[in-house]
Amino acid sequence: MAIRTVDPAAEDQLLSVEELRARLWEVGEERYHHRHPFHQLMHEGRLDRGQLQAWALNRYYYQSRIPIKDAIILSRSEDPAFRRVWLKRVLDHDGDATTDGGIKRWLKLAVATGLDADRVARREEVLPATRYAVNEYLNLVKNRTLLEAVASSLTELFSRDLISLRMERLREHYPWLSGGLDYFEERLHQAPEDAQFAFNYVFQHAHTRSEQELVIQALRDKCDILWAQLDALYFAYVQPGWPPPGAFQVEAS
Amino acid sequence: MAIRTVDPAAEDQLLSVEELRARLWEVGEERYHHRHPFHQLMHEGRLDRGQLQAWALNRYYYQSRIPIKDAIILSRSEDPAFRRVWLKRVLDHDGDATTDGGIKRWLKLAVATGLDADRVARREEVLPATRYAVNEYLNLVKNRTLLEAVASSLTELFSRDLISLRMERLREHYPWLSGGLDYFEERLHQAPEDAQFAFNYVFQHAHTRSEQELVIQALRDKCDILWAQLDALYFAYVQPGWPPPGAFQVEAS
Repeated sequence: MAIRTVDPAAEDQLLSVEELRARLWEVGEERYHHRHPFHQLMHEGRLDRGQLQAWALNRYYYQSRIPIKDAIILSRSEDPAFRRVWLKRVLDHDGDATTDGGIKRWLKLAVATGLDADRVARREEVLPATRYAVNEYLNLVKNRTLLEAVASSLTELFSRDLISLRMERLREHYPWLSGGLDYFEERLHQAPEDAQFAFNYVFQHAHTRSEQELVIQALRDKCDILWAQLDALYFAYVQPGWPPPGAFQVEAS
Repeated sequence: MAIRTVDPAAEDQLLSVEELRARLWEVGEERYHHRHPFHQLMHEGRLDRGQLQAWALNRYYYQSRIPIKDAIILSRSEDPAFRRVWLKRVLDHDGDATTDGGIKRWLKLAVATGLDADRVARREEVLPATRYAVNEYLNLVKNRTLLEAVASSLTELFSRDLISLRMERLREHYPWLSGGLDYFEERLHQAPEDAQFAFNYVFQHAHTRSEQELVIQALRDKCDILWAQLDALYFAYVQPGWPPPGAFQVEAS
């Protein structure tokens, strides 16, 4: 991180669109979970099947909360035009009569790791720490301003690069997973579209510098929520740790 | 854990007061944080000053949320008699004009570890995973029934033994901490009184077996919340892990 020299007179100045974008990307550089050791092991092919199962099973809890999170955001907007756009996110994850949504596609990935879909969908073996981190995301979108709730989705600014890399590396190191990558395939174009809308929204609706700072803080907090999920996985399943009673146990292979 | 043979006919039967107590103690035996490796290291004198600082600083976040948690429970009761009793918990932690409360006493402990009280009270260096686990306690008392909210306090059934042992071991292994133990001294008699009231309450207000099972589950969930806080500490500060950006860093001693 470069140390920024702050001109006190500038502290109240509204950031331009480029400055806001730069500040958000700076947060991503520092805190987005592409840097997390669990992802690094994954991309180097150093996770075994049990660890990938633990990842798919725990992250399913996150996936299952995303449409609920987006429904909370929907419920907080007074603007039909905003709601019409945001509704797409719920559909993207829940699917409709003709198309599978992200939740089903994530289950397909879990099945490709060798887990039973029903077992994953029951969510009984999720680590408590995963639950707490993900539930904090719901707290955030419920309890802060709508501006901050929208801003917390801005991790999607960074997800395209991570997903591209991940798909390449998963295919290379875990070819037996290749049939389960539809989720990521879809996110490759969904996430950037969504991020663009959310970025424009926060730029247009943060009317003061301090609101812009709240936007940046919300993104930082969301990065921490993603990071904590990987910490939980790493410590329970990579470094000899202890999944708590009742949580998913890796079977000896 | 003993394996219980369940008589299907008995599954709907209301537990007697002794049976309910036994089931709750069974949860404590299995899941209460007296078993957690972080506490075990503490009691064996194997934590260093920095690790005790990390503990005091992170647990301060928990302490600071307790009166808020109890105020939520207060706000959910329709019964003035219940509220009169429960109010004592808020006072115990917040203090009044003449007496320090538990929060101040916890700060005294933090100071005894060598930390500045203001730094701890700012809560800026708390691990995100600590925050998420503690906030889940607030979610629990907000979103479940009042019966379950009260039941989640029943970890106090087990705290007396743990606190007695801890005070003895802290005095033995970390004599420089001895001046900071007022918090525990007070809890030695507060916790059992509170636990007795809460136990009577849940026994009297769980009118069906399935309500009794909800009580037991709420205690289990509360144990997980305590456990997760120590996991976070252990993995960030004991086993060479990585406190996330911005969290408390142990200084080289």
